[in-house]
Amino acid sequence: MGLADADLHGPNIPKLLQAENVRLKSTDVGIDPYETSNGLKVASLGFLIEDPNMHIAWRDAVKYDFIIELLGNINWGPLDYLLFDLPPGTGNEQITIIDFIGEVDGAVVVTTPQDLAILDARKMISFSRDSNVPIVGVIENMSTMSCPHCDKDIDVFKKGGGQKLAEELVLPYLGSIPLDGEIVANSDSGQPVVLSRPDSVAAKAFMKLAENCHKFLNPEEAFKK
Amino acid sequence: MGLADADLHGPNIPKLLQAENVRLKSTDVGIDPYETSNGLKVASLGFLIEDPNMHIAWRDAVKYDFIIELLGNINWGPLDYLLFDLPPGTGNEQITIIDFIGEVDGAVVVTTPQDLAILDARKMISFSRDSNVPIVGVIENMSTMSCPHCDKDIDVFKKGGGQKLAEELVLPYLGSIPLDGEIVANSDSGQPVVLSRPDSVAAKAFMKLAENCHKFLNPEEAFKK
Repeated sequence: MGLADADLHGPNIPKLLQAENVRLKSTDVGIDPYETSNGLKVASLGFLIEDPNMHIAWRDAVKYDFIIELLGNINWGPLDYLLFDLPPGTGNEQITIIDFIGEVDGAVVVTTPQDLAILDARKMISFSRDSNVPIVGVIENMSTMSCPHCDKDIDVFKKGGGQKLAEELVLPYLGSIPLDGEIVANSDSGQPVVLSRPDSVAAKAFMKLAENCHKFLNPEEAFKK
Repeated sequence: MGLADADLHGPNIPKLLQAENVRLKSTDVGIDPYETSNGLKVASLGFLIEDPNMHIAWRDAVKYDFIIELLGNINWGPLDYLLFDLPPGTGNEQITIIDFIGEVDGAVVVTTPQDLAILDARKMISFSRDSNVPIVGVIENMSTMSCPHCDKDIDVFKKGGGQKLAEELVLPYLGSIPLDGEIVANSDSGQPVVLSRPDSVAAKAFMKLAENCHKFLNPEEAFKK
């Protein structure tokens, strides 16, 4: 599996993978992606800039060139999936990737449950439909959390907004990821929660989500069984 | 005071002010901003598009023109402050506004406490310094929350990252806004928390923040006293 970090202003995938000091190697035939011990191949602007404090204040023409360069020159090799991590919005990064790939298999819409975020998610869905990108479904992030002191449920960003949106627009609902301080801590320390706490509610939610995406992209498997 | 919503992909200020159905009026001499009962003058792309589900998939040239149009044609009248709400990142919206205004009085850096967000905030600071925009200071958003059931503190996104960043880069620390489900609910219903619950911890944090920005922008007042 390949992971392309297309968030040029906040290329945080290297930090998420505890690979901040990795630099990609150029060969005669392109750039080799970073490969984790689990076989995930990763490309990110974060691997190319020396100073992590350095900002990228690029306008579109430069961004476009860079994304094309990043995509076109990475020696991905054979991949089952290539996942793009995108910044919020329906801007240049989204448009460029759709232009370049041509036929994107699917877009996953991530939202928090509150109305303001749902408003933005609707725009993303409208954009995907206009761009002929199939929508895999809707994920509700920062969903119900459990108080670490009293174990009671807290709906900080309200509840069920993602599911309601999916139902209204007749899209699959892929699941909800709880708001969880341990996901934050795990992310900051480069330990994905699915590896560090595989039995947690959060890890199970991520696994379920991955499974739902796999099913969407491999409909023939459902019939084989 | 004027508020310009420069988040073209997520122009949510109208919803935050319960003014989703407002449409701006064009006159011979420009466009009149929407004015709230408290005298806040507001311009947003949200006031101009008919369908709130509609996305804006503009590339830079169009975005640039639109921002210049929005800024140049609004009849702001005399203002004490003009505040720009920007999307995350150091992209086109940020560059265009600095180009257009010429001399921006200050940038407020908003971050959550966790490392990943701090990494993005550092880039914003580097960008502001390169662009000769003075930095008013750092705000920590989604800071310590209080459990609505047991009242104990929860640091979902960790704690103190904003303050540490401010200290490290010798910037003023403007305060922290707690993570609070009521801010979310108030925002969704168009009732700013400073009006609906003026005695809450959250409202006091916002007021303190406004006061700190006012002091930064009016240093002469400190000497008058």
